[in-house]
Amino acid sequence: MSEYFSEASSADVVNARMGAQTDPRLRQIMHALVSHLHAFIKDVEPTTAEWEAAIDFLTKTGQLCSETRQEFILLSDVLGVSMLVDAINHRRPDGATENTVFGPFHVDGAPELAMGANISLDGKGESCLFEGRVLDLDGNPVEGAVVDVWSDNADGFYDVQQPGIQPQWNNRGVFRTGADGRYWFRGVKPVSYPIPDDGPVGQMLERVERHPWRPAHMHFLVHASGFESVTTHTFVEGDPYLESDAVFGVKKSLIAPFERTDGGDTSWRSQFDFILKPM
Amino acid sequence: MSEYFSEASSADVVNARMGAQTDPRLRQIMHALVSHLHAFIKDVEPTTAEWEAAIDFLTKTGQLCSETRQEFILLSDVLGVSMLVDAINHRRPDGATENTVFGPFHVDGAPELAMGANISLDGKGESCLFEGRVLDLDGNPVEGAVVDVWSDNADGFYDVQQPGIQPQWNNRGVFRTGADGRYWFRGVKPVSYPIPDDGPVGQMLERVERHPWRPAHMHFLVHASGFESVTTHTFVEGDPYLESDAVFGVKKSLIAPFERTDGGDTSWRSQFDFILKPM
Repeated sequence: MSEYFSEASSADVVNARMGAQTDPRLRQIMHALVSHLHAFIKDVEPTTAEWEAAIDFLTKTGQLCSETRQEFILLSDVLGVSMLVDAINHRRPDGATENTVFGPFHVDGAPELAMGANISLDGKGESCLFEGRVLDLDGNPVEGAVVDVWSDNADGFYDVQQPGIQPQWNNRGVFRTGADGRYWFRGVKPVSYPIPDDGPVGQMLERVERHPWRPAHMHFLVHASGFESVTTHTFVEGDPYLESDAVFGVKKSLIAPFERTDGGDTSWRSQFDFILKPM
Repeated sequence: MSEYFSEASSADVVNARMGAQTDPRLRQIMHALVSHLHAFIKDVEPTTAEWEAAIDFLTKTGQLCSETRQEFILLSDVLGVSMLVDAINHRRPDGATENTVFGPFHVDGAPELAMGANISLDGKGESCLFEGRVLDLDGNPVEGAVVDVWSDNADGFYDVQQPGIQPQWNNRGVFRTGADGRYWFRGVKPVSYPIPDDGPVGQMLERVERHPWRPAHMHFLVHASGFESVTTHTFVEGDPYLESDAVFGVKKSLIAPFERTDGGDTSWRSQFDFILKPM
């Protein structure tokens, strides 16, 4: 038996309908969803036409999704939801390397390479040496850490976005640290690129006067036995989009120096240490 | 220039990105959306897997939508959102007939019929006389009120759900009141029916132990010059789903008597007056 619907009691009426045997975690999530959703609606008091526009937006967002496009993840990204969920799940002590969003472009099974290898296979862009150490919170080197890296090429695309155009595994590689915890490899200095903006999310960004660009970054997934894995980027110091990343991925601690080299076999050099939190 | 993302300031960081020239109403809606959405996420602290499940649910909901199926409206309905938006947009003084959800089955252009006509064209079900008056708040009859009615047939389907099976305009008609404000027509006693439950919304209902049924009802759209239109149902007194309507459409004032007739040319009779609020 439940109360009839009324504006004042709307969320309570809906929540009272859940059965007693509902999974407790699902119950908690649904209860909070309904409460916050009704509070939002009471705040803005949408007209019928606005409600219809919201239904239409959600419908178009779902209908654009395919094997190669996930518009709802993009929506989550540009609303800061992806970063918030990431932050909640990766709280770390001061000093430990911070997480950021995983992004859609990681591929399992990239080749494990010798330290110093060049992951840029298409010969484009400005060469860059990436180097640093994997350390624990006390500054001791972590041996056997797996450093999985990936970036866009000099045209702003990942290899999986351009099959047949870029070589497979272009700008991807996996490295394993030795006793000194050091890693080093060659690649290209990453470039800024826009998230896909030809769908409903792009239209929304335009209407709130936001651009779709992400600042240039190198992806890192660092894992080592006994430590919490770190999924993060290093961001290219000086990038014009650092303070307006379309998906809010930038944290100050993740902005890495990129320095012009004086001689050597790369044009740039970027040094960054990863500090892992024990499990 | 905006602050970098942090868990604590997440909603503020996102909202600070909107441009100064953003339409004020859109700005208000987006600001509230981001604030409530982030508050929801902070309340439940979803795991990455739960976030992925939410993305998957929304994607499937969008992908089921078609010309003949609107799963996002169904989601809005079962979460009480459709009724809340309806309530917010149709606040009325005591005594005026309350609104309820419009539903997806209205068709413009139904035939205008003479009072007393039988709208049931398929010969199925238990016949019922619907009658009553259209009145203003002082109890005066409203002349020239247009009473647009529609219901399911005895099998629980609207004509538009069964093209080629049901006659066109089965259980639909438009009537116009005379000087006495009275309306009367014949139809069938409506029956309960389930909302479509073979998609993500149906799966969600099952997981929270809710059924998909709507209590039996006759739809009315009543409009008259100088008065606010009323979109409502009358619900069949005694229906087992009155207190658990899957879409929360029932209001106590909309439950109508359905009485067995003693003789006469219909088996049932349902009397209901519509009280209109002036514009």
